[in-house]
Amino acid sequence: MKFYDLAASPNTRRVRILMAEKGLEIPTVQIDMMKGENKTPDYLAKNSLGVMPVLELDDGTCITESAAICRYLDEIHPEPPLFGRDPVERAKVEMWHRRMELEILIPVIQIFVHSNDMWKGRRPQVPAYADIMRTQVTERFDWLDKELEGRDYIATDGYTIADITAQCGVLMAKAAAGIRAQPEQKNLTAWWERVSARPTARA
Amino acid sequence: MKFYDLAASPNTRRVRILMAEKGLEIPTVQIDMMKGENKTPDYLAKNSLGVMPVLELDDGTCITESAAICRYLDEIHPEPPLFGRDPVERAKVEMWHRRMELEILIPVIQIFVHSNDMWKGRRPQVPAYADIMRTQVTERFDWLDKELEGRDYIATDGYTIADITAQCGVLMAKAAAGIRAQPEQKNLTAWWERVSARPTARA
Repeated sequence: MKFYDLAASPNTRRVRILMAEKGLEIPTVQIDMMKGENKTPDYLAKNSLGVMPVLELDDGTCITESAAICRYLDEIHPEPPLFGRDPVERAKVEMWHRRMELEILIPVIQIFVHSNDMWKGRRPQVPAYADIMRTQVTERFDWLDKELEGRDYIATDGYTIADITAQCGVLMAKAAAGIRAQPEQKNLTAWWERVSARPTARA
Repeated sequence: MKFYDLAASPNTRRVRILMAEKGLEIPTVQIDMMKGENKTPDYLAKNSLGVMPVLELDDGTCITESAAICRYLDEIHPEPPLFGRDPVERAKVEMWHRRMELEILIPVIQIFVHSNDMWKGRRPQVPAYADIMRTQVTERFDWLDKELEGRDYIATDGYTIADITAQCGVLMAKAAAGIRAQPEQKNLTAWWERVSARPTARA
């Protein structure tokens, strides 16, 4: 098995945290996007969209999409279970995983893509769209703070992939958009301190 | 069990097609967004984001997010399997399901939200962003056409949730953005005719 990674990406980080939580050590290759290593014929044969991560299995099968890789690794290495333990719990984890992705992580990435100098000239940027996403993420932090009332973790009574995805979103919100949990958002702040204290948080 | 639906939504349609494929008949309530039924305290208690669909279980547990609802229904009603039959197949289905969602369905919804008159005054619209999404979806149709070379279905040798999501995306691309498979995109066109011929296609 081989993992094709991009160290700075919040998406690949989700897989790295999951691997660390499960104690998996998978040989990893860093793909340098700035040098165009993601656009070589060899890499495009692994992922025709030219993005990271990819998990290459021993028979050459390539799995792309962070969430698909996480789910596959959880299935073949079930302990600790990070996608839920029974059908209803798995449904709740998937629901919250999606919410964290669609409401927070992806909007944060959009702010970055549409406002950061790194992307100038590389991709069309629409600052007005970044502004809308900025408002949305700020509102969602408030929403998540309320949802976390009385809860230690986002989807169940334990740490799951929903927390991992939220963690990567909150981390990038701070680094790339200057949006951070406010002191009055006590539940969100407590959750953030809780997940950040895990030894896997910087994977 | 009760299903809270919005007939016009491509997201809820994914669940409706999956239910039809499995022969499930779940009591359904239509939520009229134009009348604000999705913002009542009663509905917000089921989904604090005020969007559809929701699957309410008999004990009152509410599952939101189309993909989470589809996965839950697939798990408790496994035949026919629409998420894959073994770990590697399930990984491929999830990978393609995600690609169809992130590369096609969600961008198509963004074109609609950012350019259609229906949303004027309801949500901030950025036409320049709709234009970027229009280019992306057009390019992704080409990409998908190439990926479908020699294949009847998107993720495996059979019909899966990846086809369902792609179907809903292609349908909305035509209806809401005027983007359709081109005659020279022979694989995409053949796939579209194949999935559209299923008795569940209009669910």
